[in-house]
Amino acid sequence: MEHVDVVPTPAEFAWTFGGASPLRTLRPGTLLTAWSEDAFSGQLRGTADVTSAQTFPGLNPQTGPFFVEGAEPGDTLVLHLVDLRPARSHGVSSLVPFFGGLTSTDRTATLQPALPERTWVYEVDTAAGTVGFVAGGEVAGGGDWSVALPLEPMLGTVGVAPAAGEVRTSLVPDVFGGNLDTPEMRVGTTVYLRVNVPGALFSLGDGHYRQGEGESCGTAVEGAMHSTLLVDLVKGSASGGGPAWPRLEDDEFLMVVGSGRPLEDAWRAGQVDAVAWIADLTGLDTLDAYQLLSQISRVPLANVVDANYSCVTKIPKRFLRGAPAYGGVHADLRARARGL
Amino acid sequence: MEHVDVVPTPAEFAWTFGGASPLRTLRPGTLLTAWSEDAFSGQLRGTADVTSAQTFPGLNPQTGPFFVEGAEPGDTLVLHLVDLRPARSHGVSSLVPFFGGLTSTDRTATLQPALPERTWVYEVDTAAGTVGFVAGGEVAGGGDWSVALPLEPMLGTVGVAPAAGEVRTSLVPDVFGGNLDTPEMRVGTTVYLRVNVPGALFSLGDGHYRQGEGESCGTAVEGAMHSTLLVDLVKGSASGGGPAWPRLEDDEFLMVVGSGRPLEDAWRAGQVDAVAWIADLTGLDTLDAYQLLSQISRVPLANVVDANYSCVTKIPKRFLRGAPAYGGVHADLRARARGL
Amino acid sequence: MEHVDVVPTPAEFAWTFGGASPLRTLRPGTLLTAWSEDAFSGQLRGTADVTSAQTFPGLNPQTGPFFVEGAEPGDTLVLHLVDLRPARSHGVSSLVPFFGGLTSTDRTATLQPALPERTWVYEVDTAAGTVGFVAGGEVAGGGDWSVALPLEPMLGTVGVAPAAGEVRTSLVPDVFGGNLDTPEMRVGTTVYLRVNVPGALFSLGDGHYRQGEGESCGTAVEGAMHSTLLVDLVKGSASGGGPAWPRLEDDEFLMVVGSGRPLEDAWRAGQVDAVAWIADLTGLDTLDAYQLLSQISRVPLANVVDANYSCVTKIPKRFLRGAPAYGGVHADLRARARGL
Amino acid sequence: MEHVDVVPTPAEFAWTFGGASPLRTLRPGTLLTAWSEDAFSGQLRGTADVTSAQTFPGLNPQTGPFFVEGAEPGDTLVLHLVDLRPARSHGVSSLVPFFGGLTSTDRTATLQPALPERTWVYEVDTAAGTVGFVAGGEVAGGGDWSVALPLEPMLGTVGVAPAAGEVRTSLVPDVFGGNLDTPEMRVGTTVYLRVNVPGALFSLGDGHYRQGEGESCGTAVEGAMHSTLLVDLVKGSASGGGPAWPRLEDDEFLMVVGSGRPLEDAWRAGQVDAVAWIADLTGLDTLDAYQLLSQISRVPLANVVDANYSCVTKIPKRFLRGAPAYGGVHADLRARARGL
Repeated sequence: MEHVDVVPTPAEFAWTFGGASPLRTLRPGTLLTAWSEDAFSGQLRGTADVTSAQTFPGLNPQTGPFFVEGAEPGDTLVLHLVDLRPARSHGVSSLVPFFGGLTSTDRTATLQPALPERTWVYEVDTAAGTVGFVAGGEVAGGGDWSVALPLEPMLGTVGVAPAAGEVRTSLVPDVFGGNLDTPEMRVGTTVYLRVNVPGALFSLGDGHYRQGEGESCGTAVEGAMHSTLLVDLVKGSASGGGPAWPRLEDDEFLMVVGSGRPLEDAWRAGQVDAVAWIADLTGLDTLDAYQLLSQISRVPLANVVDANYSCVTKIPKRFLRGAPAYGGVHADLRARARGL
Repeated sequence: MEHVDVVPTPAEFAWTFGGASPLRTLRPGTLLTAWSEDAFSGQLRGTADVTSAQTFPGLNPQTGPFFVEGAEPGDTLVLHLVDLRPARSHGVSSLVPFFGGLTSTDRTATLQPALPERTWVYEVDTAAGTVGFVAGGEVAGGGDWSVALPLEPMLGTVGVAPAAGEVRTSLVPDVFGGNLDTPEMRVGTTVYLRVNVPGALFSLGDGHYRQGEGESCGTAVEGAMHSTLLVDLVKGSASGGGPAWPRLEDDEFLMVVGSGRPLEDAWRAGQVDAVAWIADLTGLDTLDAYQLLSQISRVPLANVVDANYSCVTKIPKRFLRGAPAYGGVHADLRARARGL
Repeated sequence: MEHVDVVPTPAEFAWTFGGASPLRTLRPGTLLTAWSEDAFSGQLRGTADVTSAQTFPGLNPQTGPFFVEGAEPGDTLVLHLVDLRPARSHGVSSLVPFFGGLTSTDRTATLQPALPERTWVYEVDTAAGTVGFVAGGEVAGGGDWSVALPLEPMLGTVGVAPAAGEVRTSLVPDVFGGNLDTPEMRVGTTVYLRVNVPGALFSLGDGHYRQGEGESCGTAVEGAMHSTLLVDLVKGSASGGGPAWPRLEDDEFLMVVGSGRPLEDAWRAGQVDAVAWIADLTGLDTLDAYQLLSQISRVPLANVVDANYSCVTKIPKRFLRGAPAYGGVHADLRARARGL
Repeated sequence: MEHVDVVPTPAEFAWTFGGASPLRTLRPGTLLTAWSEDAFSGQLRGTADVTSAQTFPGLNPQTGPFFVEGAEPGDTLVLHLVDLRPARSHGVSSLVPFFGGLTSTDRTATLQPALPERTWVYEVDTAAGTVGFVAGGEVAGGGDWSVALPLEPMLGTVGVAPAAGEVRTSLVPDVFGGNLDTPEMRVGTTVYLRVNVPGALFSLGDGHYRQGEGESCGTAVEGAMHSTLLVDLVKGSASGGGPAWPRLEDDEFLMVVGSGRPLEDAWRAGQVDAVAWIADLTGLDTLDAYQLLSQISRVPLANVVDANYSCVTKIPKRFLRGAPAYGGVHADLRARARGL
């Protein structure tokens, strides 16, 4: 198996999906290890660093794009997350003015002033498998309340180049994936993305050492990450032309991640695609698939902070009587990952 | 311990929160067993029964209201779910025209015709702990695909009389609780509701033998239920005046259920109250509580089908360093329930 | 013609739609003059009065309800606005904490503090037909910028008792009308409301000396009002069972006012009913009516501040080739009003 | 005055904002006449042509982009609409499957089938100043109901290249303008757009012979257009850095067009910018400007059909006591237009 290891220079970071030159070309079947910078471009190093005082080259830098040989529009790109390993000894979270779920924003505008800024630094304890929350940042009285939270690494952002010649910021998720910010994007998960342009041109970044569902303050425990993935491809004829929305699979669940506003539309998108997926795998008609989904789906939120919100619909595979998705590629990749 | 057992006649069903005479008066500390009819008023008995062909006395009948002695506005009503037992050997789910999450409705109106109607009957297998999904209802070709799903009883609707003299249909949840439709309303959960009128006047109903998160087709596996609850009261001075939104607690999580439209507003409501709750229990300031919540909350949807949507914010108690909510009433009730 | 003149005492104010005893019984054909208190219950008298410092008996008091003889569910209540005359020499507007369109609210909750409070008093100049905006309230430096705005009286709130036994606050509009807050509710307009209970039980209040579309700060130039209306009734068989949403008519336009959240749903509701109305009056099928509406409708917002938003769809009557609505009752009432 | 006349070939059409090479370079002060193809790329020629049967090169082709000499990020591009003249003798409107306001869409997804397709052809009567609606397209029984509607030409789409390297489809409006679909984009209106890239790179297209507010069926009376504009520039220091959202001005109103989802967010964006604009022009503080706006704004919807909705906030200039926007450039351009 080919193993490609990529550490981009800052000048090589991608800030958009679409519109960037390929960083590397990969063959389907490749094992990729990619280092990614954190969403703050590495500029928040202590609790005294707040975003309004920085001059960022950009936010949410991506590692990529990767050109996948043989990928054509209508194919399905398959990425299996083999390993996610923090690349720093600390993660950072920060309140960004007019960004987040419990503040007005440029998209949900009010006349109120912004919330105060504050930055939290979370030390990574690899042995214990934790990141440490410490209250208060630099504010007076801070620091005397702390708790260790489980280290649960995930990728906030994985996506491909959009259709129709669009070039889209890495900050806003959509049908092409991108900044979905779901904790389901973890080790053991397989990602399915519709290919829109030759080579697919996928990128990844926005490592999170952990994140709650919804990411309400706008930022997770952000950190540079070493990500190891198996890259594969299902050709269009076998994949039904590529999924309408990003699909995920782990050992227990099939998942669809819808994005949009208002939040119910993000939910609807994922649910409608989940109905289609169930019908496709089981032979049930649309109404039966709708009924079954209604009684079995789990629906955790992903993000309620980006310019498109994201919501995950999860289908327990054990209730589908065994039909494998995409010809069983997840199980194959899982086995290959175990063999590494 | 006083044990009250109530089986209302159809004439005694309540159809609203507020506006109904008390069915019974209860003392705090009482163990209540209440039978409730299903949301279809028991009128769907087979797969040939569809809702448009019925003349319903009403939908979502409630058992209650119960007048709790000593409950005053500003107090917190406490209901601990000790047992939920299906009162029939089958549950029913049905597609109701222009109702549900993946169809246009009277609230999200389009010019498209309604989806076809269909009714599913789920046999309860108590020994196996399952309800059986069978494809197709009466449609040709139906019936040849089936799967047993776990029996996971819950109450769709629990609420108190609203404030400001309002009388509200049992179909639409809001700050007073009501038709929240969250699977978290299960055995082992304690419910906290702000008392708005003397006696609190709580009702319950809408038993579900199981339900997916979001309840996307609009109805769960609906069934008559025997519900057993411990009824308690936290006086206003001790409860901070009653929660802004319904709060739940189980052994692992504190939860807040926000309701509203669009769905992000239901989420925001629950999140803002969760921040306040964390701050109250830990002494963290608002920004620290916001940060902590962001990294630890789990956010499953409840319903995306009623005229107000509902969303649950869950806070793992183990990350709050031990401060008990409401003086530890959940643990007390849990212990009492175990002793029954 | 019978002329009924009503000035309720504060104890007679209604605060809800439904749930209040009739203030007076009226025969169809009656001319009603009703005095209504302002939405602040008359308690803001100067720029130093802010809402958080008051103890209100309630907000948005209504004059009514009026029991209309012969009105039965399925009929259409018809109210023609003959005259709206300010009952005070000044109107008041105020920023209410966490209320309004450009602030977070209890429904769109954030962690930000409320905007500052401020109250504006608008002197009414009857001769000039103006109300005077003066900057600043009591704040330092206020008062040196002023402008006279046209006096354009309207009623913020007109509605009937809801269906299904509900009792609803006068603050939130819905299918029964209520707090629509549209400037179209002016002299010369005829209102059509579906009757839900015997006698219809309509109320009115919330006089505005003027209001912008959307009512963004949450309050108009609020003032006590003398309202004169012709009350009429179209029986169910002639009215098609009563409109789904409040309908209005003036000499130029047919209008439907939808309410709900998100705002697009308020819009959709009004548009779908407008399509049905056009189809009904012209004989066009649904798709042609949809097409015609798309090219001719005017769509001003009403309110984006209440717990349900309201949006008006206006259809220029001249493009419908002359079919009169409700048998021409608007023209009849207009003629009767002119003859007074 | 320099007069540039541009008729692009189909190969020269732009389909995005950003990402296209300049079609022409213009000096500020230039008079531009630009021909634009209709949003259907000219492929719907009769009522038998429906969109699902066509293979479009793309939808909503733009004429441009135009590189404006001297335009730098932070400047304000000024476009004054001097003349809009239909370039064909007929316009076309069509129901596109799963597109429009009163149907489910890919963004507001349901399981219902699409509405039927239908296409309407509107003959232009230049002498009478009308376009003719004829019921029914090719369907049986169609054609016997018709009405002449006023010819009121407008441009659906005007925008500049977005910031941050994005390339955005011409179908979705945002802060850079684009597919706003407001009838206010008519002769006599001046458009202000923030410049994001050197040269501004503005494009225009999507001519409408008329359109209702909201554009509910998804398409206006679409037609090829000859547009004549005066192109100007206000440098950043004089323009305050360019408006946050597209601003318009005519002889009576200042306007801001916000875009987003849900619709209340589109409204909020425009309102918040309108408050800032009023404060800037009058010296009122934010709360006074908010209050004044609340009582004077008119708020017609623009589109409720695109992936971002658009809503217009209109401020009557006469209530601002005379402070001219952008140094009075609208009046200057108006005078120059009259002198042509």
